[in-house]
Amino acid sequence: MANNTITAPKGFLASGVKCGIKKSGKHDLGLIVCPAGAKAAGVFTTNKIISAAVQISQKHVKSDTIYAVVVNSGNANACTGEKGIKTAVRMCAEAANYLVVDPHHVLVASTGIIGERLPMGNVTAGIEDAIGQLSDSATAGMNFTKAIMTTDTKAKTACRRIEISGKKVVIAGTTKGAGMIGPNMATTLCFITTDAAITKPLLAKALKAAIGDSLNKLTVDGHQSTNDTAIILASGMAGNKLIKNQDSSYKKFAAALMDLCQDLAKQMALDAEGATRIFKVVITGAASRADAAKGARAVADYDLVKCAVHGGDPNWGRILCAVGSSGVKLNPRKVSCKLDALSTSLRAGLTVFKNGAPTNFDRKKASRIVSQVSHTITVDLGVGKYSDFCVGCDLSKGYVTINADYHT
Amino acid sequence: MANNTITAPKGFLASGVKCGIKKSGKHDLGLIVCPAGAKAAGVFTTNKIISAAVQISQKHVKSDTIYAVVVNSGNANACTGEKGIKTAVRMCAEAANYLVVDPHHVLVASTGIIGERLPMGNVTAGIEDAIGQLSDSATAGMNFTKAIMTTDTKAKTACRRIEISGKKVVIAGTTKGAGMIGPNMATTLCFITTDAAITKPLLAKALKAAIGDSLNKLTVDGHQSTNDTAIILASGMAGNKLIKNQDSSYKKFAAALMDLCQDLAKQMALDAEGATRIFKVVITGAASRADAAKGARAVADYDLVKCAVHGGDPNWGRILCAVGSSGVKLNPRKVSCKLDALSTSLRAGLTVFKNGAPTNFDRKKASRIVSQVSHTITVDLGVGKYSDFCVGCDLSKGYVTINADYHT
Repeated sequence: MANNTITAPKGFLASGVKCGIKKSGKHDLGLIVCPAGAKAAGVFTTNKIISAAVQISQKHVKSDTIYAVVVNSGNANACTGEKGIKTAVRMCAEAANYLVVDPHHVLVASTGIIGERLPMGNVTAGIEDAIGQLSDSATAGMNFTKAIMTTDTKAKTACRRIEISGKKVVIAGTTKGAGMIGPNMATTLCFITTDAAITKPLLAKALKAAIGDSLNKLTVDGHQSTNDTAIILASGMAGNKLIKNQDSSYKKFAAALMDLCQDLAKQMALDAEGATRIFKVVITGAASRADAAKGARAVADYDLVKCAVHGGDPNWGRILCAVGSSGVKLNPRKVSCKLDALSTSLRAGLTVFKNGAPTNFDRKKASRIVSQVSHTITVDLGVGKYSDFCVGCDLSKGYVTINADYHT
Repeated sequence: MANNTITAPKGFLASGVKCGIKKSGKHDLGLIVCPAGAKAAGVFTTNKIISAAVQISQKHVKSDTIYAVVVNSGNANACTGEKGIKTAVRMCAEAANYLVVDPHHVLVASTGIIGERLPMGNVTAGIEDAIGQLSDSATAGMNFTKAIMTTDTKAKTACRRIEISGKKVVIAGTTKGAGMIGPNMATTLCFITTDAAITKPLLAKALKAAIGDSLNKLTVDGHQSTNDTAIILASGMAGNKLIKNQDSSYKKFAAALMDLCQDLAKQMALDAEGATRIFKVVITGAASRADAAKGARAVADYDLVKCAVHGGDPNWGRILCAVGSSGVKLNPRKVSCKLDALSTSLRAGLTVFKNGAPTNFDRKKASRIVSQVSHTITVDLGVGKYSDFCVGCDLSKGYVTINADYHT
């Protein structure tokens, strides 16, 4: 079977080990290494309170070359003050020491409990163990994925194979749950490897665009954590002609990266805490792209819409309430709302509200659409030509159970 | 027993009847009448999609004198287009007809299912019935309260008695649940009566301030409905010297009105769908009042904080995450967080996070604070001198049950 993990692109080794940070004894420390060095780019949380690892990686990612990423789960090393910063610096230094590179060429990420100090003894032993287990096998790639999981119920990986200037280029990625889930405050971490030869600025541009329309368009409960991090490493070993302009090769690469990130985002949504369904909210006819994005997010974040989707209830009133309440410009006499799903019989969609008044729609069909694992809500604001979207998931009793019944 | 309902102030009659709008057969049409005419003021939803009743009442409330308010529950008459507007106009006209006044001197409010036409036959019969049952008794006042309830489990009324220029002045109010609750989309309606003699502009000013720091500081799921309405009627029959300046009499009146509205808001929060606890979020040290309000609302609206409160979990990490994610200015090295509750042993409060790092706080005590029916979370942003607050309630499985398992 083909290797579809982050070790699939040429030039990458990975590992994942158990070093005792997680009380469960599961995998909790992972390493990605690009021995020949990789170009790197990152997208980080916009929360104003950021973890130690994010603070360090935001600096290190500016380096021309990155040789490794060291990641731990089970502890976010966030809100831990100066001591936490020292710990994150030391994680980079210890990995760098084994690879005989400068610590500034190593990235770090953490996820898990907030406000508790990382047990540095475990981390040190874990890094040593992870160095020893580095491999380009699919098993090694999957062990890395296991090492970043917190309350995820499924491993999340995706791989895309494209051809650029006659060479096979591979992009692979892995991510952990977006649920802001227990035990305390989890995070979104996403790691992508590729063997494409591409300049650092274009790599950063492609990553920003891909995350912007995937992870950043996914909302589980509307917040960014202190630790959210997405990193891409490009080894350049595919042998393609260096991508240095926004030409057709760049576009092909960027499109594949976008597709991969959207795949990962979808996996995250469906594995979000207690989620049973996902839905895409598309806003059209907006006065600006910003308005469209704001309206879409307001609907996807609205607990009453999320509850209605959970119940398979085509409750367009709640959708309109969320849009009307979001502060976007709209024409109450022109607002329309449509529901559709991918399944053949439902693809035509159903207009449930048109020009400010409800239509005499088929309630059974509407209920069937909303009961699919995935459906689309389209709201036209009737004031402009701009559109945007957001992906959300339903709100179930499972979410409350996970987040209320666990005690810190 | 003293009458503490909306018929307590001099000059008001009320009634509440069952006219068959609600399938349950419960009270669903209410009337407040001030035969001698009252000064009126209103505060309405800021949602851009507003119900027919709100559109009409926003116009009528500008009249110098209001003689009646007609309210129905069980149907929001929202998103019903031009036909809905005609229905709201007709409700005013029919009540006005019995009272021999112009329809512009009658206000109207609706709450209940969105997007369905009001059964006008039932409404017409209901208004006739309600006119016949008008009385200044406590029973009549309570029947009005029953007529505005949707999924409320308790009637919500409050009354304040003060003395102004040697005269007894009474203010009484009633409200319905803020839960944005089933069956479809409910609304906040609030009706206040007073016999104070006060000018229309000052009445409006006092109402706006009182609602601004009570109902508008209450968040159950972060949205305003299409129908939210708060109305105050002042008969002037207490015989106090007309309040026409912002003097001590005005301040006394405004303070009592604020206190009454906060009492009603608290009753609403504790009766919100599935709510078992309420909490007040206070932001201090903000760069502006707007930032303080934004930060407080972000914490009170954050599902993970709401879940933590439900579980009695002092999860300060989620609180900081919400503040950091809200976009307000803060100093990560100066942020602090304190928890306290009213009960004697807990009033001193507990600082759980100080100057950007967690304190070594007593977890058992923190858990006891968060497990009270009501507690306060104070976050200091460390950048300025402004403060504001917001009141929220916990998120329970009951919320999901009410909002997901009901089918429209």
